[in-house]
Amino acid sequence: MVTKRSVLKFGGTSVADFEKIKNIGNYLKDRVNNDEQLVVVVSAMGKTTDVLLENVGMLSAKPNEENLALLLTTGEQQTISYLAIVLHELGVSVKALTGFQAGIKTMGHHMKSKIQDIEAEVLNRNFESHDVLVVAGFQGINERGEITTLGRGGSDTTAVAIASALAAPCEIYTDVAGVYSTDPRLYPAAKRLDVVSFEEMMEMSALGAGVLETRSVEIAKNYNIPIYLGKTLSDEKGTWIMPKENILEKKAVTGVALDKDMNYVTLSYPMYDRNLLEELFIRLEQGEINVDMISQIVNSDGLQLSFTMKDTDVNQINEIFSGLIGRFPSLVYNVEENYVKVSVIGSGMRDMSGVASKVFMTLLNHNINFYQVTTSEISISYVVNHENGQLAVEQLCQAFEL
Amino acid sequence: MVTKRSVLKFGGTSVADFEKIKNIGNYLKDRVNNDEQLVVVVSAMGKTTDVLLENVGMLSAKPNEENLALLLTTGEQQTISYLAIVLHELGVSVKALTGFQAGIKTMGHHMKSKIQDIEAEVLNRNFESHDVLVVAGFQGINERGEITTLGRGGSDTTAVAIASALAAPCEIYTDVAGVYSTDPRLYPAAKRLDVVSFEEMMEMSALGAGVLETRSVEIAKNYNIPIYLGKTLSDEKGTWIMPKENILEKKAVTGVALDKDMNYVTLSYPMYDRNLLEELFIRLEQGEINVDMISQIVNSDGLQLSFTMKDTDVNQINEIFSGLIGRFPSLVYNVEENYVKVSVIGSGMRDMSGVASKVFMTLLNHNINFYQVTTSEISISYVVNHENGQLAVEQLCQAFEL
Repeated sequence: MVTKRSVLKFGGTSVADFEKIKNIGNYLKDRVNNDEQLVVVVSAMGKTTDVLLENVGMLSAKPNEENLALLLTTGEQQTISYLAIVLHELGVSVKALTGFQAGIKTMGHHMKSKIQDIEAEVLNRNFESHDVLVVAGFQGINERGEITTLGRGGSDTTAVAIASALAAPCEIYTDVAGVYSTDPRLYPAAKRLDVVSFEEMMEMSALGAGVLETRSVEIAKNYNIPIYLGKTLSDEKGTWIMPKENILEKKAVTGVALDKDMNYVTLSYPMYDRNLLEELFIRLEQGEINVDMISQIVNSDGLQLSFTMKDTDVNQINEIFSGLIGRFPSLVYNVEENYVKVSVIGSGMRDMSGVASKVFMTLLNHNINFYQVTTSEISISYVVNHENGQLAVEQLCQAFEL
Repeated sequence: MVTKRSVLKFGGTSVADFEKIKNIGNYLKDRVNNDEQLVVVVSAMGKTTDVLLENVGMLSAKPNEENLALLLTTGEQQTISYLAIVLHELGVSVKALTGFQAGIKTMGHHMKSKIQDIEAEVLNRNFESHDVLVVAGFQGINERGEITTLGRGGSDTTAVAIASALAAPCEIYTDVAGVYSTDPRLYPAAKRLDVVSFEEMMEMSALGAGVLETRSVEIAKNYNIPIYLGKTLSDEKGTWIMPKENILEKKAVTGVALDKDMNYVTLSYPMYDRNLLEELFIRLEQGEINVDMISQIVNSDGLQLSFTMKDTDVNQINEIFSGLIGRFPSLVYNVEENYVKVSVIGSGMRDMSGVASKVFMTLLNHNINFYQVTTSEISISYVVNHENGQLAVEQLCQAFEL
């Protein structure tokens, strides 16, 4: 009988207190008794990370990121220790591993690092003598031996990257049961989806559905690792995310996503200047600012450019532009906050006409102005004012019967 | 100008809150500005370790030690992060290093591991680009890549071992200014000593003076590393611990130490049986129980043995004896708690007569019964009832004018 291996991930709210950690321990024991071997990736308990950040706030307004990453990783290290103590108490053969012990190699900025490599042989060797490997999410070690944290959605990325390295399925547990056609807090009639494709899920998370970070889905897609998104210790059915080839019935539209906290920048310059654009985007990249949607118009008035960014520090943007104006004095720019992006997503969209015009008419009929539009193979996105976000989601869900 | 390198250690009460950490940061900055390079070893903040142990108490009565060590080391990791953030904010070039990052290799039990080796080249390399290396005390990594904690007094050992590896002097800061002739809480008239020899200090700590763990002093002695024991951020003078050759005026008696929480075991067996003794001491060793004083009498009644131990779990002792009685049914034993050991210490003792008899007469004159006696080159120790401990210290201090 071949032992099945799976990777499970429990987020911060799932391990928020010691009772929850014990319950997870019992659940894992049952699965081991059912002849499974498990990698269990955990986040820091509940508000641990917030408390650590609050402490740091007393020491420095702009704390050094190398040391901040070193501090934050203690949160996950504590969770793996607690869960391993519980499992050991339950008689389960368990090994707790921090990021570096699990062979998770990272690269890039200390607080936004990326997984470069996972040494699968480290995990396989530990499976020779243990049934459960509890691994600290959100962290790894870089080529200089410094402990780093992964960017947003870090623990999900840890879980999916390990699943890919082991060619095992990945189960991600949170306090929400799976993926909905839209955020139920925005539209209570939203439906849970049984299955979505990697591509749809990537659009949904990149567009702010917030269930699973794009990077995690991207890794799963590249390695063809199915992901199950479920509610922690619940019988409620969750959502499978898998290759679109495996999904029989494709809908034109599966979901509507709302991405909050978008900033909207417009700039104008009396002439088209390649150097200006080059320098702008180099500076944005150096500041690790992800530009989302870009529109550009060049005419006799010169250059008009607008772009959106998510979760950006406006001070940082202003700093970048101050530097730029030093070199290009006739540059005029404007940063606006409080925009949102509404997206309609569906793998079937490319095969069915009429989706774009239906979205357009729906917004028009409800007097919702939009500022940027982008389309991809499986999505259409509109930037609208913050106050129109919820209305747009509701009306689009109704229009597409989600 | 050659930069001076020193190792400094700040204990848990010295870094108990963020204000204290900031003050230490400012102090270190001044020293760096004075052209020094520093290794700074820190413990977990205040009650952090206690809180973690309390949490574990909710999960397991006898938590797995590998995972417990992994948990506890997060305390020191947090302190190094905070202190490094403060120093960075102050413009000091600083690198924070956990035990494994500082190249501290350990061996033995996870919760009582010993430092096997320190990679001085790791620290030297970091000194090429940083002036302060903040190192997590009390921890290291073993040959299997598991994170371990050192035994009692662990952070002191870390500091002294690093100082030895770098051949630098070591300064250990606590909330007490140096070494006293006896514990001032027991005898308020106790005097602070300017200097003590390694040998005296080893007796004092092994005998419970509690200022500095024996192991640290032993390492310092082996490498001839002077240790300064001082009060954190205070102008009060502390105590230098150094080779006895460097100490000009030797006193017959420098100190009186009181070692609390001694257990006293007596056993009898109808005949002298080598196997019984062998098995007893093997079991004690396996349980990591340090036997202190031993007396043995063999006569026509058979074997009488008594020994003392410090800080031992009586249940564990009873377990060991239960196992032993299974094999040697006529073994009779008795464990008593609440004994203390009073010791009189002084390098000059070996050259001056009359110390032993003076101690003996002092105890006799105050009706203090004793149960075990041992003497070494520079100390005499008596086990007495707990309630006589303070009286013995007071009277001995008066007798020797300490």
